[in-house]
Amino acid sequence: METVLRSAKGTVIIGPERPTVLIGERINPTGRKRLAAALKSNDLSLVRKEAIAQVRAGADVLDINVGVKGIDEVDLLSGAVRLVMEKVDVPLAIDTADVHALARALEVYRDLAPQGKPLVNSVNGEEKRLAEVLPLVKEHGAAVIGLCMGDEGVPSTVEKRVKIARKIVEQAEALDIPPTDVVIDCLAMAVAADQMAGRVTLETIHRVQEELGVNMTLGTSNASFGLPERQTIDQAFLAMAIQAGVNCPIVDVAKVRAAVLATDLLLGRDDYAERYIQAYRERARDR
Amino acid sequence: METVLRSAKGTVIIGPERPTVLIGERINPTGRKRLAAALKSNDLSLVRKEAIAQVRAGADVLDINVGVKGIDEVDLLSGAVRLVMEKVDVPLAIDTADVHALARALEVYRDLAPQGKPLVNSVNGEEKRLAEVLPLVKEHGAAVIGLCMGDEGVPSTVEKRVKIARKIVEQAEALDIPPTDVVIDCLAMAVAADQMAGRVTLETIHRVQEELGVNMTLGTSNASFGLPERQTIDQAFLAMAIQAGVNCPIVDVAKVRAAVLATDLLLGRDDYAERYIQAYRERARDR
Repeated sequence: METVLRSAKGTVIIGPERPTVLIGERINPTGRKRLAAALKSNDLSLVRKEAIAQVRAGADVLDINVGVKGIDEVDLLSGAVRLVMEKVDVPLAIDTADVHALARALEVYRDLAPQGKPLVNSVNGEEKRLAEVLPLVKEHGAAVIGLCMGDEGVPSTVEKRVKIARKIVEQAEALDIPPTDVVIDCLAMAVAADQMAGRVTLETIHRVQEELGVNMTLGTSNASFGLPERQTIDQAFLAMAIQAGVNCPIVDVAKVRAAVLATDLLLGRDDYAERYIQAYRERARDR
Repeated sequence: METVLRSAKGTVIIGPERPTVLIGERINPTGRKRLAAALKSNDLSLVRKEAIAQVRAGADVLDINVGVKGIDEVDLLSGAVRLVMEKVDVPLAIDTADVHALARALEVYRDLAPQGKPLVNSVNGEEKRLAEVLPLVKEHGAAVIGLCMGDEGVPSTVEKRVKIARKIVEQAEALDIPPTDVVIDCLAMAVAADQMAGRVTLETIHRVQEELGVNMTLGTSNASFGLPERQTIDQAFLAMAIQAGVNCPIVDVAKVRAAVLATDLLLGRDDYAERYIQAYRERARDR
């Protein structure tokens, strides 16, 4: 099962036997004070900088989230999408809770990449959200991330998360959005707050892979929140999540790309270790 | 299924839901010129030093291998076992291809730890080796590592490796050595030489876990041989191997313990992240 994303000139394919696709997470003001402040004053220079830096670090797709309180997200998101598309040529994940901002950003994406196919981040299991977002996904021929959470938040059991994943895939299919265009996010929660959090996520990934076979993303860095040496946890989690079925995690690319390439190599997805060695040479050269 | 190892005063339990047990690999002259030279001149001071350093770094068990050409391994191995047992109190994995050296070392172990239970490293699928080693394992009430290789070397297929694992477990059972006393090593080979090597090992681990349910070790560092930034590969491999069923890898403990503790934490085997945080504090204190 392969998910195809397209920018103006490029194509990214997400699939189980392929090298892991990295979605750059850094254009997101959550927990980033400087970016939040810049966005509040309509300053997109940091967005441009982060876009260029992440693609240089090896991001295959960029997530674009400009959600801060007190801004006009409709204008700001479409402006950010336009700017990033002018500066770099990778498909985008349009990340917003505001359906109007999403609609406008999708229009901008279509204007600049008429044959393009973005990723919508995200829908979840809530009826209202499904009803708002899926028609836009269908209209624009986009792919969509489906979060394993519903009206009652993030379920603590594997069973309930898998049930939501199935519901999202089925509701998408009812609108003629094929399962190849649905990317499930099994959701990582902080292990410092709940010691079973990592395990529940990994088991959910395993189940979704076996039962639905769809492609999966994951924002792995949530797991290590509140703990020391977070990178050690993030990298171990990524390796296990990819082994279990995640194939397009949302990550800080510069920090984790080497670990992801090592994981791909060990899973037999890097012929002659070419990508691993090439990335090593690039890092050595940039130092 | 739990494997119990015992030193003179301590007990180590290897089991699927327990924290990963770390077997320290550094008392082994392979690829270590200084240690090899010291052993050739009957100098065990480095062995003592490595024993103390590895236990301080968090090793739960120590592997003892003194195999260099031109020495009397019977004397040297039993001398090393005696010295290490006098200096540190962890169970040992007695690692030798020489059955006479094994027999003598097991006697020394019994003398110094009459209620002890060491790990014999190793037997493999060869009839000759099974016939030599298993009776000693039985006689001393030891546990034994079974390598997934046979008369024709290390098989390249998952199927053949699982078949050897099963053969070893069955032949042990025929001598009344229970499966709890057999620890299987699915064998890691260099991915630089064979791009499917990591994947074959991981799939073998998965199959052995499902079909035999025995505990497993693995010398993960072989996988990264010949590649740059080996630690990145080793840590990703450990995370995936532990997720698949390895629960007592043979490792350079100081280098990989943080990654293993992160893996245990994410697999729900570290209540309140206590071990992860404690190890972080110890490292911070030692710096």
